[in-house]
Amino acid sequence: MRISAETERQFLEAVFKAQRFSAKDGALLADTLVDADLRGISSHGIQRLAWYTRMIKDHTLEPTHQPKILNETPTSLLIDANQSMGQIASAFTMNKLIEKTKQLGVSLAVIRNSNHFGTAGYYSRMACKAGLIGISTTNTRPLVVPTNATEAFLGSNALAFTFPADPHPFVFDGATAVVSSGKIQVLAKKGAQIPGDWAVDEHRQVLHDAQTVEDNLTKIAFSENRPGGGVLTLGGQQEVNSNYKGFGNSLIIELLTGILAQGSLSADTNTGKHDFSQFFMTINPALFGDPEVLKANVTTMFDRIRHLKHLPGTKIMIPGDREYRHYDENLVQGVSIDPQTLTEMQQVGAEFGVAVPAALKA
Amino acid sequence: MRISAETERQFLEAVFKAQRFSAKDGALLADTLVDADLRGISSHGIQRLAWYTRMIKDHTLEPTHQPKILNETPTSLLIDANQSMGQIASAFTMNKLIEKTKQLGVSLAVIRNSNHFGTAGYYSRMACKAGLIGISTTNTRPLVVPTNATEAFLGSNALAFTFPADPHPFVFDGATAVVSSGKIQVLAKKGAQIPGDWAVDEHRQVLHDAQTVEDNLTKIAFSENRPGGGVLTLGGQQEVNSNYKGFGNSLIIELLTGILAQGSLSADTNTGKHDFSQFFMTINPALFGDPEVLKANVTTMFDRIRHLKHLPGTKIMIPGDREYRHYDENLVQGVSIDPQTLTEMQQVGAEFGVAVPAALKA
Repeated sequence: MRISAETERQFLEAVFKAQRFSAKDGALLADTLVDADLRGISSHGIQRLAWYTRMIKDHTLEPTHQPKILNETPTSLLIDANQSMGQIASAFTMNKLIEKTKQLGVSLAVIRNSNHFGTAGYYSRMACKAGLIGISTTNTRPLVVPTNATEAFLGSNALAFTFPADPHPFVFDGATAVVSSGKIQVLAKKGAQIPGDWAVDEHRQVLHDAQTVEDNLTKIAFSENRPGGGVLTLGGQQEVNSNYKGFGNSLIIELLTGILAQGSLSADTNTGKHDFSQFFMTINPALFGDPEVLKANVTTMFDRIRHLKHLPGTKIMIPGDREYRHYDENLVQGVSIDPQTLTEMQQVGAEFGVAVPAALKA
Repeated sequence: MRISAETERQFLEAVFKAQRFSAKDGALLADTLVDADLRGISSHGIQRLAWYTRMIKDHTLEPTHQPKILNETPTSLLIDANQSMGQIASAFTMNKLIEKTKQLGVSLAVIRNSNHFGTAGYYSRMACKAGLIGISTTNTRPLVVPTNATEAFLGSNALAFTFPADPHPFVFDGATAVVSSGKIQVLAKKGAQIPGDWAVDEHRQVLHDAQTVEDNLTKIAFSENRPGGGVLTLGGQQEVNSNYKGFGNSLIIELLTGILAQGSLSADTNTGKHDFSQFFMTINPALFGDPEVLKANVTTMFDRIRHLKHLPGTKIMIPGDREYRHYDENLVQGVSIDPQTLTEMQQVGAEFGVAVPAALKA
């Protein structure tokens, strides 16, 4: 079932208003979810609404709170999200970094006491719109087993890196782990098998049944006594394929987020009082050359890569190609709403006095 | 065969002096090679001497040249290495970044017109010694096949990231590809098989014979008409295991080096006039908290990870653990010299009038 992005936006803004977010914050939150659905990242779209609503109820998330600046220098910000939604603190922070980087060429920020922030790419793309290189990261719930370990410690720890290019920017945006938990949730909903080496049991044996993995990951991420197993680091099951490099990548994000923020480590966000932390950076490429020349050079390089010899029936895609294609398609055909999300929209709508879009009632 | 690090250093300094490097530059170059050998990174140790000597002869490398500052701001440097050795421009640059970051908390640099720079970790560890977070990257010869591609385009594109910790810093240092070409060279010298999924042929089929792969990589990296195949991105052969994330990581390094420097892309360093580019960054963690508290928190986190449940007979190691262990061991037992490297040392020594260490003559 599909609805237009505009219809999705109106519904979400009405719900967020009823949940006591300001008009500005509600519009931002709605935009991050609509944007994810348009880009085909449905794991981070409107299907998160029911979860966000639960976070308001248990006071993990306070809709009226605003982020506070704890420390500011010409090149940096330390922000207390103050239990506002991650999106609110993150957009606030990225807008300030863009101004700083226009002055001094580079700036960076750490956010503590934060929540889930949607897709990492949303904020690094803000930098790109201003002609800057953007970096955006967050730690997450514990899911990922370090090299040789049989229990989870790290989060899926997202990283987005964007760089200006034509016809669209380079957008690398995803978990540093092999996959985010959302990808497994989507397969479990469909009763599907996991097609690759993504998750392991307590003996580091690869599991392929998505529902089995999803049940295990839920226990790992949300219970006091974490069972064994989890999601693999990039590089897979075996040390011989350099999975310690994927482990290193995930650790770097943990250092820049939970450690620099002095917030919860991913490992400690399973139960009890906890928070998430974010790290952002913007760089002005003009420090090193004419931005238009650099952009043209990048665009040429990507075109050369897209046209390399490749396996028959496959395509070489630059990070961002897929999501900008989805964006264009979904603007026309509307965004997809799965049956479970529709049910959740009806429940949240009923509770907050917002009618679900007419198109979904048929 | 083993010699003491001090003996290795004296031999190298004498050779570099005879090759017309200044005493200061020769000492630095020797230190980077001895340091790599001590850390067990023998692919980047004294076995590179014969190659460096060839680069002097073909004027890729000019021993008496010094780097030049092309553009400087309070937070950035654009450097022309001026065909000096990569180590010379890189150490020059990192020393300046450390001073800048002590002022403004963050700074970054791009080096163009450079050469091979040794191990990436050498420079990010310089930042760490000054209490800073260090990032160090370079592009390299073409070796790596993008996701779905059957020919190489990217370099192995090294990344080092260091963060202060006890008893030693976090040192993530290596190719963004599954492996660097050096690892395959070492196996080929031994006539060994490749134990994992590292390299593919022109049909993206995994190859396991190290000599076959090494022969192919040499043609890919150094000839005009590049044959198919190459080294895999982190994540391996198949898209389903998210090898596009490894591709993205390698592309990020290419953007920060070849693109920002307006130098050669890795793809274009196979023949003809070309250069390599480097990117460095330093961050002061004190922007966000008391450095001693942050360091203690990191140390505690690493100890927790080292003690996670793991597979019998394995160990969980934090990036850096292995190389600091080798360092301590090799300081005592000496660094290992393989027979081929000994032959090369004798040839270079004879040519430049430097006697090989007595210990190697037995």
